[in-house]
Amino acid sequence: MNFNSKVFKKELINLSGREEYIVRGGRHLFPLLPKAFEGIKQIGFIGWGSQGPAQSQNLRDSLEGTDIVVKVGLREGSSSIPKAEAAGFTRASGTLGEMFEIIKTSDIVILLIADAAQAAVYKKVFAAMKDGATLGLSHGFLLGYLQSIGESFPDNINVIGVCPKGMGPSVRRLYVQGKEVDGAGINCSFAIEQDINGKATDFALGWSVGIGAPFTFMTSLEMEYRSDIFGERGILLGAVHGIVESLYRKFSCEEGMDEKEAFKQSVECITGPVSKIISKKGMLAVYEKFSGKEKEMFEKAYSASYHPAFEILLEIYEEVASGNEIRSVIMAGDRMKRYPFGKIDGTRMWKIGEQVRAERVDDAIPLNPVTAGVYCAVMIAQMDVLTEKGHEYSEIVNESLIEAVDSLNPYMHFKGVSYMVDNCSTTARLGSRKWAPRFDYILTQLSYPVIDSGKGADKNIIDRFVNHQVHKSIAVLAKLRPSVDIFLK
Amino acid sequence: MNFNSKVFKKELINLSGREEYIVRGGRHLFPLLPKAFEGIKQIGFIGWGSQGPAQSQNLRDSLEGTDIVVKVGLREGSSSIPKAEAAGFTRASGTLGEMFEIIKTSDIVILLIADAAQAAVYKKVFAAMKDGATLGLSHGFLLGYLQSIGESFPDNINVIGVCPKGMGPSVRRLYVQGKEVDGAGINCSFAIEQDINGKATDFALGWSVGIGAPFTFMTSLEMEYRSDIFGERGILLGAVHGIVESLYRKFSCEEGMDEKEAFKQSVECITGPVSKIISKKGMLAVYEKFSGKEKEMFEKAYSASYHPAFEILLEIYEEVASGNEIRSVIMAGDRMKRYPFGKIDGTRMWKIGEQVRAERVDDAIPLNPVTAGVYCAVMIAQMDVLTEKGHEYSEIVNESLIEAVDSLNPYMHFKGVSYMVDNCSTTARLGSRKWAPRFDYILTQLSYPVIDSGKGADKNIIDRFVNHQVHKSIAVLAKLRPSVDIFLK
Repeated sequence: MNFNSKVFKKELINLSGREEYIVRGGRHLFPLLPKAFEGIKQIGFIGWGSQGPAQSQNLRDSLEGTDIVVKVGLREGSSSIPKAEAAGFTRASGTLGEMFEIIKTSDIVILLIADAAQAAVYKKVFAAMKDGATLGLSHGFLLGYLQSIGESFPDNINVIGVCPKGMGPSVRRLYVQGKEVDGAGINCSFAIEQDINGKATDFALGWSVGIGAPFTFMTSLEMEYRSDIFGERGILLGAVHGIVESLYRKFSCEEGMDEKEAFKQSVECITGPVSKIISKKGMLAVYEKFSGKEKEMFEKAYSASYHPAFEILLEIYEEVASGNEIRSVIMAGDRMKRYPFGKIDGTRMWKIGEQVRAERVDDAIPLNPVTAGVYCAVMIAQMDVLTEKGHEYSEIVNESLIEAVDSLNPYMHFKGVSYMVDNCSTTARLGSRKWAPRFDYILTQLSYPVIDSGKGADKNIIDRFVNHQVHKSIAVLAKLRPSVDIFLK
Repeated sequence: MNFNSKVFKKELINLSGREEYIVRGGRHLFPLLPKAFEGIKQIGFIGWGSQGPAQSQNLRDSLEGTDIVVKVGLREGSSSIPKAEAAGFTRASGTLGEMFEIIKTSDIVILLIADAAQAAVYKKVFAAMKDGATLGLSHGFLLGYLQSIGESFPDNINVIGVCPKGMGPSVRRLYVQGKEVDGAGINCSFAIEQDINGKATDFALGWSVGIGAPFTFMTSLEMEYRSDIFGERGILLGAVHGIVESLYRKFSCEEGMDEKEAFKQSVECITGPVSKIISKKGMLAVYEKFSGKEKEMFEKAYSASYHPAFEILLEIYEEVASGNEIRSVIMAGDRMKRYPFGKIDGTRMWKIGEQVRAERVDDAIPLNPVTAGVYCAVMIAQMDVLTEKGHEYSEIVNESLIEAVDSLNPYMHFKGVSYMVDNCSTTARLGSRKWAPRFDYILTQLSYPVIDSGKGADKNIIDRFVNHQVHKSIAVLAKLRPSVDIFLK
């Protein structure tokens, strides 16, 4: 995949032998934004869910002092109006308005309403847009939906995507932290679906740099929605939830471990030290922390979990690529009027978790070899599925590793699984609710009995892990990671 | 729904105020079979999975002494050939042959190969069939698949369905028991999708009576595949598995109950006394077994579980009706070449279960009010979803209650969940594997915390249960139930 920018410098990186172009971001590039947005007077962000508040505030802050106005458009009577006002988008100043008013008057319309809502109102949105304007998406879902019903985007507009590889609150928080330390932010992929005036690429890159992406890589909207919807059902949300539920139960119910200790050895271990090590030093560094009996346990856990995880992940990918998962999300939208999201962490385990977090001493969180082995196996299996399905390494590593350890797991560490899930999109939440139990069951049925048996690790599976080509890509991308950790309070 | 038979007597029954025609079966009707199959010389059963062995043997036995030959067709080199030979379908006698040879020469072709295989070879099957022959299905899956790809059946054949509301081994075992006691067997629905010669209805009824159905009711192939694929994902397989896993865990892990006792209070309770009482006396009889504190517990459990169950069941129904579930089964067929079915009962709980079954004293199995309340809530929720979606009561009650308590639960009681699941179709197994964990999670997250809270039952939900119109239908249908219990050894 290649692209040309008149404004930003592209850079060739080598990921496991495959070359990709990226654009490095940073606050020093903000003066280039007016040039990137040449001809643009108004950018309208539609919606105030997970990404809306983050991206609109970031881009407004980045464009401060220019002639480009950032506005927010919301439904008449939306309960988010006071929140947008509190963030400085006000009716009084003209930077907050009814969504279709904002759509009609914007040169770039960034549509960040929920996926099901996009499916419901896309015709009205297309009709309201100015001829020659640009539609921005942070997710390929709408394309997937249009494909599934045999429709397409109107041909008189640009269609671009800038897709942060982290939840909205991370996009905002790291941007704010980045005011002190240049380079903090969430990586984004970008996609050019339609370019009617030759400006789409720089609009997209300007948007990505402007919201604080430390680096931006290219994809297509189709590959984006596949990897994104897949990834959040996998290690980012669904899998990590299923892993910790099943491991907590294994430790506490089956092995008789004290409940708080079981929570530490499962949840705390993943969201704390495992995530931190992977973020800073990669996955092999986790493995190398162990020796002797512990190393053997890691190997047993990894080797017993890899194939069950791959099996479920392959199923998820194919459910996404076939359009099934998109149809499910649309249907769920209707059902949710009758049955809104239920609470997922009202169970005893998560009550214990609250206590554990309250008493937490960060340096005392254990690094459990079984937990680490299972987690790494699922993460590698996810990257292997994406590789098999033809995704580029930037997308693979961001969607399977960086988003997990730099954005989502820290939120889970901070306040538990429900807090993390509640700050994600409806599509992500539905997917997590659907697939977490599947990971739980398949690990409990196929992996843990093998771990607990006398059988040793499968040496081939461990060799593949140790020599996996992805570690080199992770090392290259680690150098491009934000210069600060996300800080939550 | 109405139909006319030249051979069998139809009977009007009143189910909760709605009238339906049924045909009562019995061995005394076997002399009518030649008339029902007028013009038919050869009936070919294709496949030797769950239904194949049962139906082909039953119909052959019922047609003994007539001129109609029952044959079995299998793939060249199929591993089932020795099994069919052992059941008396032999190459030497000409009653066993290559599947397309049998299809070409049969007047009625009863296609009982796996759903995914039907999707793979349906064109070849249609092409091989004689002009004017009859295609028999025991499941509407193929219609659902054809709909999902915009195709249809050829118009020069009859297309009929006879769909036993029980797994193949039950169909055979009750038929064999029925040789001693008239009227033993598994109820069937029948459907006339295409009738090119006016004989389709009697062919279908002859088939149904001939395989031993105590009563036969009408449906359409579309309503059949919806209710069937839905039902096995619900209370018949998926739900019952999820319920017992989650209850066993609640009792043993959270309440500290001895593991064997927890197995008895959850699994044994459902597959034993609860199923028996419902089968003989209906659902209200279960409720009426309790008094005082126990009745309160039943009510709390029922009331806390009804809505979470309804929510998941509604999701399942819509996934089936939209074609998603059918697409999933087809895609899974390909993946299973790489990852065959894993073992689902290798976990500690099911090992405990083996011990419990070995030591079982039938009369000592407890009737746990929480277990009974949860189970009844899920069963009623399933019937409510089917009612909301426009199914007839015969189908609703057979697909939600009779098949559970008279066919599947007894198998689970006999040898555990895996044994039951292994004797069902691939579509059923895939569905159970997919949805059992969802029932487990939603009950654990939304129902059990409410049961364990100080909150009492929701009186409206209990009133609806007690006064539910379905109880009358159950009572009418109970009189039509087999005169013997299934006996497993």
